[in-house]
Amino acid sequence: MALKTNGARPTIAVDAMGGDNAPDQVVRGALQAVEGGARVVLVGPEELLQPRLKDLGGDLTILDAREVVGMDEPVGQAMRRSDSSLRRALDLVATGEAAGAVSAGNSAAIMALSVTILGRQAGVDRPAFGGTLPNRHGGVFVLDIGANSTVKPNNLLQFAVMGDVFVRTSRGIESPRIALLSNGTEDSKGTKEIKEANEALHRLDLNFIGNVEGNQIFEGLADVVVCDGFSGNVLLKASEGVAAEILGLLKREIEKDLLARVASTALIPTFQRIKRQVDFEEYGGVPVLGINGVMINCHGRSKAKAVTNAILLAERLAKEHLLERIGESLHEEALEAGRRRRLARALHLRPSHP
Amino acid sequence: MALKTNGARPTIAVDAMGGDNAPDQVVRGALQAVEGGARVVLVGPEELLQPRLKDLGGDLTILDAREVVGMDEPVGQAMRRSDSSLRRALDLVATGEAAGAVSAGNSAAIMALSVTILGRQAGVDRPAFGGTLPNRHGGVFVLDIGANSTVKPNNLLQFAVMGDVFVRTSRGIESPRIALLSNGTEDSKGTKEIKEANEALHRLDLNFIGNVEGNQIFEGLADVVVCDGFSGNVLLKASEGVAAEILGLLKREIEKDLLARVASTALIPTFQRIKRQVDFEEYGGVPVLGINGVMINCHGRSKAKAVTNAILLAERLAKEHLLERIGESLHEEALEAGRRRRLARALHLRPSHP
Repeated sequence: MALKTNGARPTIAVDAMGGDNAPDQVVRGALQAVEGGARVVLVGPEELLQPRLKDLGGDLTILDAREVVGMDEPVGQAMRRSDSSLRRALDLVATGEAAGAVSAGNSAAIMALSVTILGRQAGVDRPAFGGTLPNRHGGVFVLDIGANSTVKPNNLLQFAVMGDVFVRTSRGIESPRIALLSNGTEDSKGTKEIKEANEALHRLDLNFIGNVEGNQIFEGLADVVVCDGFSGNVLLKASEGVAAEILGLLKREIEKDLLARVASTALIPTFQRIKRQVDFEEYGGVPVLGINGVMINCHGRSKAKAVTNAILLAERLAKEHLLERIGESLHEEALEAGRRRRLARALHLRPSHP
Repeated sequence: MALKTNGARPTIAVDAMGGDNAPDQVVRGALQAVEGGARVVLVGPEELLQPRLKDLGGDLTILDAREVVGMDEPVGQAMRRSDSSLRRALDLVATGEAAGAVSAGNSAAIMALSVTILGRQAGVDRPAFGGTLPNRHGGVFVLDIGANSTVKPNNLLQFAVMGDVFVRTSRGIESPRIALLSNGTEDSKGTKEIKEANEALHRLDLNFIGNVEGNQIFEGLADVVVCDGFSGNVLLKASEGVAAEILGLLKREIEKDLLARVASTALIPTFQRIKRQVDFEEYGGVPVLGINGVMINCHGRSKAKAVTNAILLAERLAKEHLLERIGESLHEEALEAGRRRRLARALHLRPSHP
């Protein structure tokens, strides 16, 4: 197999075997991206993938990998597989043959293998999963959403810096509004860790707007919300649950009532617009932040569209040099000396001009 | 002033000055409850409340209290007020002149004063705020939703026992399904505290169904969800936020489109049914659990309807002997010996038959 990495668009490695709908939906998603001009290497068992590609009438470079990481497989077991499609996809990023990787597989395994194979970025103690919560203001980026159940204040500061860079890079917002998730807006609210992080964030050169509560996230107050992975997971999952519940309720209530049923046909385009705006699948995938490479983790239930979007996101992050930008931001010369020293201390960096 | 505490319905003390809409909406809510046959004592500055009652053409017993606890007042300051309407309402519960109290005021002050004036129940280390999240299965009771930012495994066990009794008492469910909020359904998911609590809960004589994630709460899998107050707050606030966002989106999308606007008039009853089902205000208030008395804390934004509902809830909990039931449950003789010992140890009780 010869990888084509030259040309205008970077190559993205796609774990064909990750996710509840793998490999079918993953293959379809990859083909759709390629039809739009993307360069993709599909990673997985060749004898399984080749016939599917043929059936779908598509042509993709395949990198053979004999093993598959199960969705609920313990991380230790996943790590011991030397020829899994996930590991091989990350290897391509490590060698530079791919500019980024995408997988809808086991999240814990994705995080563990990403850190092992690609390594942590300098100045980052704990990499994080970021995720976008949809709202009518273009969404809010939340991190961590599941990698770190408990965090120290320094981890929260690092998440804030990484989130700031990610949103500047992916959405082009010049000075993203950063907020800290707490159980009250006052600076004094929250756990010990949150209070310390709040105090430190006020001193960093970020557009830190203070604490927000769960409900304010949807009001568009902040572009980045920083939290521990446990709360972030609760936030994300609860939001998904409520959205699904209300849309389901709407459907059932309309079906109960003949007049409503007739009237609702006129509302179908409206309902579809709403569904798109609150559809978590639209967002494709979430980056693993703080590692030396671009790795996008899609939801386990991802269908083709989400895989395509994740490939495009990986491509964009690679092209826009996300990693270098995070690195620069952690070292940021522009920070005034005192602030820099405090940031540096928080981030365990040695300031270049003491 | 002579309090009437005899008769079929128990007297409920209402803090007339608590909440963003106090005293007007609180007085209205109390009057509505009394019109339905409830017995209420309104607590607050008599010279302020008497004219309002007159304007509204109502008649209520007033207990004069000269001070008001501010909504954002620090707890220490609130505790120092010797004649606040909140303190006086709780005093009535402590002396037995009222069977329960209701306040839409400062939650932190409500918790602190409840514990100080009424005391903790035997076997309870940390009282908790419970709250009901609406879903189409009649709602799920979540605790803690804000009193304890961090918890130990024993606190979570105690929350489970209190939640079990509350749901049996308030909703008549014989064997409520109890779940633990985590960032994954596997027993191995969550923080150290949650893993320990999960293990211990499996051994208690409760209908413990294991861990649930935020999205599953709305699927009706559990009747009680146990969590620390920080995650509980995130869960509750995020759910409120998403519900408000989607209903707002629906309204705006319909207004954009003439055909949709016309069609939607036929859907008004449907929308109203949905709004009622996801309306957090319908639920009135949340009990402070683990204290020696009935105290219902309403949302600060409560209007009359929520206050009325809170009064009815306080009445019901008093009549059905919630406290005694929680006490019995903590001591539960029916638990087999081994289980009892473990529960007793977890709850710091001395088993009666070792």
